Amino acid sequence: MRIILASKSPRRREILTMLGVPFEIVSADADETSNITDPALLVRELALRKGRAVRELLRSEGRLDENTLIIASDTVVAAEGRILGKPTDDADAARMLRMLSGRSHHVISGVALLQGTREIADFDQTAVRFAPMTEAEILWYVQSGEPRDKAGAYAVQGLASLFIEGLTGDYFNVVGLPVHKLDLLVRTFTGRSLPELSL
Amino acid sequence: MRIILASKSPRRREILTMLGVPFEIVSADADETSNITDPALLVRELALRKGRAVRELLRSEGRLDENTLIIASDTVVAAEGRILGKPTDDADAARMLRMLSGRSHHVISGVALLQGTREIADFDQTAVRFAPMTEAEILWYVQSGEPRDKAGAYAVQGLASLFIEGLTGDYFNVVGLPVHKLDLLVRTFTGRSLPELSL
Repeated sequence: MRIILASKSPRRREILTMLGVPFEIVSADADETSNITDPALLVRELALRKGRAVRELLRSEGRLDENTLIIASDTVVAAEGRILGKPTDDADAARMLRMLSGRSHHVISGVALLQGTREIADFDQTAVRFAPMTEAEILWYVQSGEPRDKAGAYAVQGLASLFIEGLTGDYFNVVGLPVHKLDLLVRTFTGRSLPELSL
Repeated sequence: MRIILASKSPRRREILTMLGVPFEIVSADADETSNITDPALLVRELALRKGRAVRELLRSEGRLDENTLIIASDTVVAAEGRILGKPTDDADAARMLRMLSGRSHHVISGVALLQGTREIADFDQTAVRFAPMTEAEILWYVQSGEPRDKAGAYAVQGLASLFIEGLTGDYFNVVGLPVHKLDLLVRTFTGRSLPELSL
């Protein structure tokens, strides 16, 4: 089985590497505009689109065969009824962190698997509870540079851990790839577990 | 402020490094025998003993001053009313994993801070929910070597993530150092946050 990770995210690469799964990275731009307002349905759809974009790219290059399994994922942060993507700048990051401070929010990742013409997709959700942050703490955290390029303007695996009281659900879902859910999906789709794919 | 981590655990070192805190490692053997059966009170006491053992070592070597802050921690896994430490061998690891399979258990870390003659200690608790594991999965995981030298015979930050449905509480507490609780304790004890200690 040849495994393709349809993602540019260094965090997703690290997670798959940690699991001992050999994989290649192929990413392709997918249309991310959507009318879907439910975050779980949205990330499920965006993961599928990312996977399909990579499938089309591989097909057009003559590199797609029945042995190729494409894994795609998309993550958003949902807080106060709004969906937070990556901050546009430091002021936007500070605005997002003020929304998260002293409250719980949800991190939702969609996962899609594609092989030949077959597709399967699902999502996983984790609640994350932030301690109240002072304005000085928000500025300190923004200035650390960590919020850049992170959905919701924080990295659970970094300095933000100082401000996170706790979470409920899969930790790796917050990092960007819901490991347990992915393994369940791989078992349903291929009849083998994620580690068995490379045997 | 000179910070001493009273621990040999590579995971605790990685966490403090991730937080950008400069520290030295000094470890000393502490008596770990105790009649305490409550796991939270036990890890709190063992963290204090580890910190005191390091304080005595530094004092005996003339290396203790008022600027030295000692951080000590101890972690246990509590499942089915029993306390699980590190497995003695692969058979013991398999026995522990059979206890954790398909159930929730608690990971409890004690943290102690010592400076001069002052001491403070607390604990943090995280619930971890394992999916049911087949005997083949348990053997595969034991053979990966990951359970060795880990309390409860698993590493939440490794291959065990495949089998962990979710957790409730601080993820880093399960890795071995409850980051948010440690920061709260440092603020109470020193009046400064953990990142501010090195300024």
